[in-house]
Amino acid sequence: MKLAVIGSGNIGKSIGSWAAKVGYEVIFSAKNEANAAAAALAAGNGATSASPAKAVKSADLVLYAAPYGGAQDILSELKSALKGKVLIDASNPLAADFSGLTVGFTSSAAEEIAKLVPGTKVVKAFNTVFAKVYDSQNPEISGKKISVFYAGDDENAKKTVAELISKMGFDAVNSGPLASARNIEPLAMLNIALGYGLGYGTSVGFSFNR
Amino acid sequence: MKLAVIGSGNIGKSIGSWAAKVGYEVIFSAKNEANAAAAALAAGNGATSASPAKAVKSADLVLYAAPYGGAQDILSELKSALKGKVLIDASNPLAADFSGLTVGFTSSAAEEIAKLVPGTKVVKAFNTVFAKVYDSQNPEISGKKISVFYAGDDENAKKTVAELISKMGFDAVNSGPLASARNIEPLAMLNIALGYGLGYGTSVGFSFNR
Repeated sequence: MKLAVIGSGNIGKSIGSWAAKVGYEVIFSAKNEANAAAAALAAGNGATSASPAKAVKSADLVLYAAPYGGAQDILSELKSALKGKVLIDASNPLAADFSGLTVGFTSSAAEEIAKLVPGTKVVKAFNTVFAKVYDSQNPEISGKKISVFYAGDDENAKKTVAELISKMGFDAVNSGPLASARNIEPLAMLNIALGYGLGYGTSVGFSFNR
Repeated sequence: MKLAVIGSGNIGKSIGSWAAKVGYEVIFSAKNEANAAAAALAAGNGATSASPAKAVKSADLVLYAAPYGGAQDILSELKSALKGKVLIDASNPLAADFSGLTVGFTSSAAEEIAKLVPGTKVVKAFNTVFAKVYDSQNPEISGKKISVFYAGDDENAKKTVAELISKMGFDAVNSGPLASARNIEPLAMLNIALGYGLGYGTSVGFSFNR
């Protein structure tokens, strides 16, 4: 399974590295191709890098791990390459000062991204866990498995994403249609508020116990 | 510590009973006083019942456990009795068909309730856990302690609420100012969607691991 990662920030690098480790053929990409090449080198496990357009073209699965603010610019150029593919949206529509979200209630980052790339199967996932946790390549915190919530409107696309989540060792929680991102993105905001503002740090995460 | 419970539905009955069990002097109240009396009888452990006005008057701590839709009617009559007291808002602004929230993003049920009762120290809490869990009087699910998120603008009021949460055996998570209810209420909506719509059932709950 070929996974293209768009964005070589902390989230893209850490999820991409982990995916490569558990057997995905990972292609890192970024506006700055040198950053993508460095991410591939650091990841090892056969990871490569390419321009976003090339990475998406050859991939089965695409992870959007760039800031939400850049989505319109980045994705409008990839629109036709993304058609028919599964696009994981790991972004959060954070205000510049981290004080809250810029989209919500009547929409979500995931739904806005889906509007930018018609014909692409968008799945919200990976947005409620800190990069530090992905970087640890350990899906547990204090011995408890962290949950990754995924939501989308295409059941097969969701299965593909759930498989990646499970292969990384996380607890995959089917959270319904893409509009559920309206609840999952505020959970990320709560996580960020707890981690940064309230002193719990970033080696933290939620479990959905049942 | 005297706890007045407003509302004798599943949430009010189950939290009130548990609070009585862990040593709170609980006074149940409801529009229908017979329901409040029945709740007190079922709770035992010295629980009593009274009219909402009398219950609030004699209490140190008040739990609003009625539907959010009734808040304006119920709380406008209790405005002066509530002044200076700590009011826990356990409500969720649910749409009638449970499909989403009726308030969010730029406000929350908790903030709207705070506007109804100026001078009252409102703390959001207990809204992300199913009544079935409270009813079990067991703060763990599959051996994992469930987190109760609390948010408010008065630090002493928050301490009082955190103490109740901890005495019940839950993990109390300080989630910041009252405006954090904008993130905590969507978490309840996610819980409801998972429990009802997605088949996980209502013996479920979130942990914030750190």
